[in-house]
Amino acid sequence: MANAIVSQSGGPTGVINASLVGVIEEACKHKEIDRLYGGLHAVAGIVKEDFIDLKKLSIETLERVAASPSSALGSSREKPNDEYCARILEVLKKRDIRYFYYIGGNDSANTCYIINNMAEREGFQFRAFHVPKTVDNDLLVTDHCPGYGTAGKFVACALMGDDLDNRALAGVKIDVIMGRHAGFLTGASVLGRQRDDDGPHLVYVPERPFAMEKFLADVEGVFKKLGRCVIAVSEGICRPDGKTYAEIIAEDAERDAHGNVQLSGTGALADYLAGKIKSSFGVKRVRADTFGYLQRSFAGLQSKTDVDEARRCGRQAVLYSMQEDNGSVAMKRLGNGADYAVELFRTNLSDVAEHTKSVPDEFINADGNGMTDAFIEYAMPLVGQLPKTEYLGNYPKA
Amino acid sequence: MANAIVSQSGGPTGVINASLVGVIEEACKHKEIDRLYGGLHAVAGIVKEDFIDLKKLSIETLERVAASPSSALGSSREKPNDEYCARILEVLKKRDIRYFYYIGGNDSANTCYIINNMAEREGFQFRAFHVPKTVDNDLLVTDHCPGYGTAGKFVACALMGDDLDNRALAGVKIDVIMGRHAGFLTGASVLGRQRDDDGPHLVYVPERPFAMEKFLADVEGVFKKLGRCVIAVSEGICRPDGKTYAEIIAEDAERDAHGNVQLSGTGALADYLAGKIKSSFGVKRVRADTFGYLQRSFAGLQSKTDVDEARRCGRQAVLYSMQEDNGSVAMKRLGNGADYAVELFRTNLSDVAEHTKSVPDEFINADGNGMTDAFIEYAMPLVGQLPKTEYLGNYPKA
Repeated sequence: MANAIVSQSGGPTGVINASLVGVIEEACKHKEIDRLYGGLHAVAGIVKEDFIDLKKLSIETLERVAASPSSALGSSREKPNDEYCARILEVLKKRDIRYFYYIGGNDSANTCYIINNMAEREGFQFRAFHVPKTVDNDLLVTDHCPGYGTAGKFVACALMGDDLDNRALAGVKIDVIMGRHAGFLTGASVLGRQRDDDGPHLVYVPERPFAMEKFLADVEGVFKKLGRCVIAVSEGICRPDGKTYAEIIAEDAERDAHGNVQLSGTGALADYLAGKIKSSFGVKRVRADTFGYLQRSFAGLQSKTDVDEARRCGRQAVLYSMQEDNGSVAMKRLGNGADYAVELFRTNLSDVAEHTKSVPDEFINADGNGMTDAFIEYAMPLVGQLPKTEYLGNYPKA
Repeated sequence: MANAIVSQSGGPTGVINASLVGVIEEACKHKEIDRLYGGLHAVAGIVKEDFIDLKKLSIETLERVAASPSSALGSSREKPNDEYCARILEVLKKRDIRYFYYIGGNDSANTCYIINNMAEREGFQFRAFHVPKTVDNDLLVTDHCPGYGTAGKFVACALMGDDLDNRALAGVKIDVIMGRHAGFLTGASVLGRQRDDDGPHLVYVPERPFAMEKFLADVEGVFKKLGRCVIAVSEGICRPDGKTYAEIIAEDAERDAHGNVQLSGTGALADYLAGKIKSSFGVKRVRADTFGYLQRSFAGLQSKTDVDEARRCGRQAVLYSMQEDNGSVAMKRLGNGADYAVELFRTNLSDVAEHTKSVPDEFINADGNGMTDAFIEYAMPLVGQLPKTEYLGNYPKA
């Protein structure tokens, strides 16, 4: 019998709390686990022994936690080095914590890996398990990541509404979506399309070079055909020479002594693209939104598939830790469409740590400005049921 | 027996289609109305006789319309002058359209008023009714406007998620919310607060002067106390001398030859405020989002109260038109809290046309940086049930 700890790291998601609740409810079932600590603010709180007792929470509280966006234990962006990890191990030993569940992205898998190796070298019996989460869907090995489906649902619903708005008051609309290196979330913008002329009409992901002249020609082409154009763009798009547009804008901003420009939490890229379109061809109404933090933390919006899988991954981490020394929980897809299902499996921490996955070639169209049917088949079950909408402007004239 | 037309004008909302369906379902019950035209893109489509036949739509289609955001008939920002209204009247006469239902804001009420007066002068028997809509909630006479509750629900859910996100990764977060002259929608940011230290901690509406030094002192005060700060700001905030910050930024932008800066569809104000905070006191993490069009057109998110009232207002416009010559549909509040209910009444078009309402003094706190309990009592029933969330960081330490 020993103590256990669970923590949440990196950027919040809409279902990282469901994984937390999965860990808690499963841990409560196993007599091997005595106390279950919640480590506040990830590694930053663990070194300070900033813990709460998770076994004291009522079922009602847990269900509210599971339905809440963001990280109920708080988070941290700190990437612990060896010395930092050694301090963490000190605390774990002191508290007799021998089960470590860490919900996060590839950096969190890496933290698990380092601490686990350290414990092994020191002969401290210890089991470290990583539970995947990310809105970017960019972890290796697993078919997809908890957190992606819910963020994808937000993006799909946003684009559905925004496309209808653009029909009502026509023009060019740009939506900048999270994703520095992987375009999965931006791709989700297409999932709500129902009519042939529904937007987004153009989608740009970081996996393809973004050449300004090609972009402007694409937009003008759609606008000439439909009289409007809705565009989804990843925040991480790069020029063909590999420089991100965020960097390009930041350099301009520095030259103008305008201060810092960040990639998230700013409308700089959206406004930059809008400016290019305005000065490129004769369209009066160009608008641009940057979805920002809403897409990862919005109360009351979850994908049912995503929240169920996130909770299952949390439970499974505890189950694996009863038999195995360490690992990361991953998902294997068993079927698509109506047959969609996943089974969970254990993978090595080192297989998930540090590296990331990109959108595969077959999910991006040949022109590099849209998503394929294969992508829709992949992403649709993760986002789950989307609302049906109606627009009357295409009905026969009276 | 004569024909009728219904149209939607101005910025879309999440329930303007429910009002449209209310008009359609009620119009179908009255033998006085022969054909019911849907006028596409408001006045811009009416002069071109860009009509569809609304009686041909199935009940299933109508229910999908009622649940869809944005304006299913399209919209227009054009403000018709007398000559334009004369062209509209020509079309109405030609098509024997004697019932005119116009869903929109104060400009739409004014259009109804002008056309109605014109018809009267020319002896054309004609009944013009205005159905209120706006996310800004700034129409006169009515207790509140259809469209506000749903946009308010979006803003409340966004701030609930964003506040939890800010707890997870602490810093200063600024959210810029729609509202050029009225702060009702920005005020809705407080409606999801559940815990004493829940954000938004500061709320700024256009009804109060926004002095930069006071703002920075407010933010620093909250940050020193809580280690974080979430701020909701109306896009239309003004300096004490009456100049909007959007104007100030646009002037700066012009001086820098950076091109156009718009009030909506841009992150300029949010980034400007973030920059001021960063250079003012020692906080590393400052983020800013501009909610943009998502707050008025987001698929799958409606306030039940709002969508029900919007539909009722549409039906009532048709009912009034069976007995009265013209008017605008307004709501009177009969009770609050559990006793919340409204009754509808007819008001004169001229009472609603052109002018707008501001947030009353008793809804804004003495410091001009927050909303009062009186506001919450007013706005809560309109937004309806909000999700309950949980954050564990405040629980007793173990």
